[in-house]
Amino acid sequence: MARSLPTVTPGETVTLQGWVHRRRELAKVTFLVLRDRTGLAQVVLPAGTPVPPEETTVEVTGVATANAQAPGGIEVTEATVTALTEDAETPPFELWRPELGVSLPTMLDHAPIAWRHPAQKVRWELAAASMRAFRRTLDAMDFTEIQTPKFVESATESGANVFKVDYFGRPAYLAQSPQFFKQQMVGVFERVYEVGPVFRAEPHDTVRHLAEYVSLDVELGFIEDHRDVLAVLREVLAGMVGELGPLAERAGADLPLVPDEIPVVHFGRALEIVGAPADEPDLAPEHERALGVWAREEHGSDFLAVEGYPMAKRPFYTHPQPSDPRWSNSFDLLFRGLELVTGGQRLHRLSDHEAALRARGEDPADYTAYLQAFRHGMPPHGGFAIGLERWVARLVEAPNIREVTLFPRDLTRLAP
Amino acid sequence: MARSLPTVTPGETVTLQGWVHRRRELAKVTFLVLRDRTGLAQVVLPAGTPVPPEETTVEVTGVATANAQAPGGIEVTEATVTALTEDAETPPFELWRPELGVSLPTMLDHAPIAWRHPAQKVRWELAAASMRAFRRTLDAMDFTEIQTPKFVESATESGANVFKVDYFGRPAYLAQSPQFFKQQMVGVFERVYEVGPVFRAEPHDTVRHLAEYVSLDVELGFIEDHRDVLAVLREVLAGMVGELGPLAERAGADLPLVPDEIPVVHFGRALEIVGAPADEPDLAPEHERALGVWAREEHGSDFLAVEGYPMAKRPFYTHPQPSDPRWSNSFDLLFRGLELVTGGQRLHRLSDHEAALRARGEDPADYTAYLQAFRHGMPPHGGFAIGLERWVARLVEAPNIREVTLFPRDLTRLAP
Repeated sequence: MARSLPTVTPGETVTLQGWVHRRRELAKVTFLVLRDRTGLAQVVLPAGTPVPPEETTVEVTGVATANAQAPGGIEVTEATVTALTEDAETPPFELWRPELGVSLPTMLDHAPIAWRHPAQKVRWELAAASMRAFRRTLDAMDFTEIQTPKFVESATESGANVFKVDYFGRPAYLAQSPQFFKQQMVGVFERVYEVGPVFRAEPHDTVRHLAEYVSLDVELGFIEDHRDVLAVLREVLAGMVGELGPLAERAGADLPLVPDEIPVVHFGRALEIVGAPADEPDLAPEHERALGVWAREEHGSDFLAVEGYPMAKRPFYTHPQPSDPRWSNSFDLLFRGLELVTGGQRLHRLSDHEAALRARGEDPADYTAYLQAFRHGMPPHGGFAIGLERWVARLVEAPNIREVTLFPRDLTRLAP
Repeated sequence: MARSLPTVTPGETVTLQGWVHRRRELAKVTFLVLRDRTGLAQVVLPAGTPVPPEETTVEVTGVATANAQAPGGIEVTEATVTALTEDAETPPFELWRPELGVSLPTMLDHAPIAWRHPAQKVRWELAAASMRAFRRTLDAMDFTEIQTPKFVESATESGANVFKVDYFGRPAYLAQSPQFFKQQMVGVFERVYEVGPVFRAEPHDTVRHLAEYVSLDVELGFIEDHRDVLAVLREVLAGMVGELGPLAERAGADLPLVPDEIPVVHFGRALEIVGAPADEPDLAPEHERALGVWAREEHGSDFLAVEGYPMAKRPFYTHPQPSDPRWSNSFDLLFRGLELVTGGQRLHRLSDHEAALRARGEDPADYTAYLQAFRHGMPPHGGFAIGLERWVARLVEAPNIREVTLFPRDLTRLAP
């Protein structure tokens, strides 16, 4: 199997495998830039040596030579080149240029080719490293990874925007989140996480919504309140940021500092800060941006947690704020003035769940499967969810979430 | 947040949180067995102390004392008990008994409660540890984790048994595997893996099929042939088995030894070994069992790879055996005589793909999205997929795969 470039030592005879990133035929010499999973290497060939067209996969054997001028710092001389396949067709864009420089639809139509561009590829590497650090941080805190079903029996969990499936002749729905399942599994493992797809039949065509995205879900039991949840979120973010250093540099991403304690403001106070009326039920995007600036100035932090969101705007299972049940023990985490994470404490008593459902005009009998765990003993608990693509989009400041999604799915796009 | 039992030192005053696993009121003393995420601890209370019913969540404060007689080896004396919620209702089965001892339907109907039983819980811990080791092994080999869409445009990939979704008013399908996507991503990252749900509209109600399961998918480029794929599979299995030691003991699972090289027999030879006719197109379950015995006797191995399956029984993208194109460069891995993994080399030339599709009466134009990557240069590549639940079922010798699936989905079951 192919050696990777970083393992090559100058002076040795090496065999490398990869793609023809670029070929340049000059009068006295032919250059081939080889691209493999780790980077680029320049191959020097006698003038007139036939080189397959760009993107053809090849094997190159020659002598490795250090050359600071060469891309990747390695040059291969006295080389022979063997094509591994038939000649590649000309790609829809020139992958060897420093910038891809094509429109978003062109990029998405040719996603499996566009992701080959080094500046695009590193963005997904940020996503992969984030998942790895997310899991490692939680593993170290005694969390158990779970995998919960995407087929659900009813559309009750949040009501709207669910996808309907023909399930052996009867209707089923695709889970909008693992929320109910992760809570039930707190009853087994106390601390759980899941990384997996969630499905939202979002009828809006916006730069930050997808019909399917990857959710990094966490839930834990035996908490005091939502502040314990926020403390775990802080550890997770610190773990993720700590993993991304070298990749962020390559991706041109400006990594945030994660403060030892994430600053928190109450929703009511947040409205005052941004000068919004005290009866405003939610924060508008311009409010979030203003709070981002405020957090930076007052706390020197890229992150700000807004706690106490009005109960009326939160799902039925949200735990109210004990001192004033108009507010909730839930929070949104703003990252540079944009909402990144929603989390909070959930109800843990069966009687509270039943009352909350009835207050919203719902029948607890429709939630029998979910409520079973509460019938037989659940601890105070809470959790949060991070949208993977949204996280990466914010890191690299991608204006559209589709730019950091391998194969985006939305109102109009189902392929490639 | 809750301390875990293993961090408790005899002599110290501790506060523990968990579930009332069992209460026993004797004439002179009351025992409470506390269960947390890590195990059990016995709490000794004066006779007549009120203890909430089983499964209620409680907080216990007292003095930790070593006691080899106590479950978990720790006893808490001079204790006070505080309930964290209202009293739990009596569970549908007694979780404190050594065996759950109920029928499979009862267990599945009450899955979130049944999983609390220590003997059941450790089975999922085997699954979680397997996923962790799978990823760690591959990360160390330069693989990149990917997340690919579950919504697909057409049902072409394998034709039958796909779930249909109402996708904003038009039909879409749920991916039966990430096969096409992982191959395309070999064109970007060379070596990729994905852990995620796959969806099979299996009309059969068997002990080994589910409508949704977790697939551990791997694909890598620049291989010689399927033997390179098998070598990676061997590393992955060794990594997984290496992680499971202490859990396997608790689960009563007999871990296999993973040989340095997994023995391989050709399909034609396998038919001879089991005494089947030479024109048999597939291995029947009794053949697989016989081969399992043979592998044990001849090679001292729990694993056996059968390579060269007839092309006619493999998907169109399978790479034929160069020396005889009736056979394929693919394999099944048998684990103790049961199929666990399917893998192999795939076609990498556009022209081969087009010819293979036409030979099966299919129109390459229906595969435009998939074939795009091959149009623009792909290396020789291959991969495999392990079914997570099937792997765990084999380890613990669960007769039905549903016993090791958190919330199984099948022909009839959509809840809890």
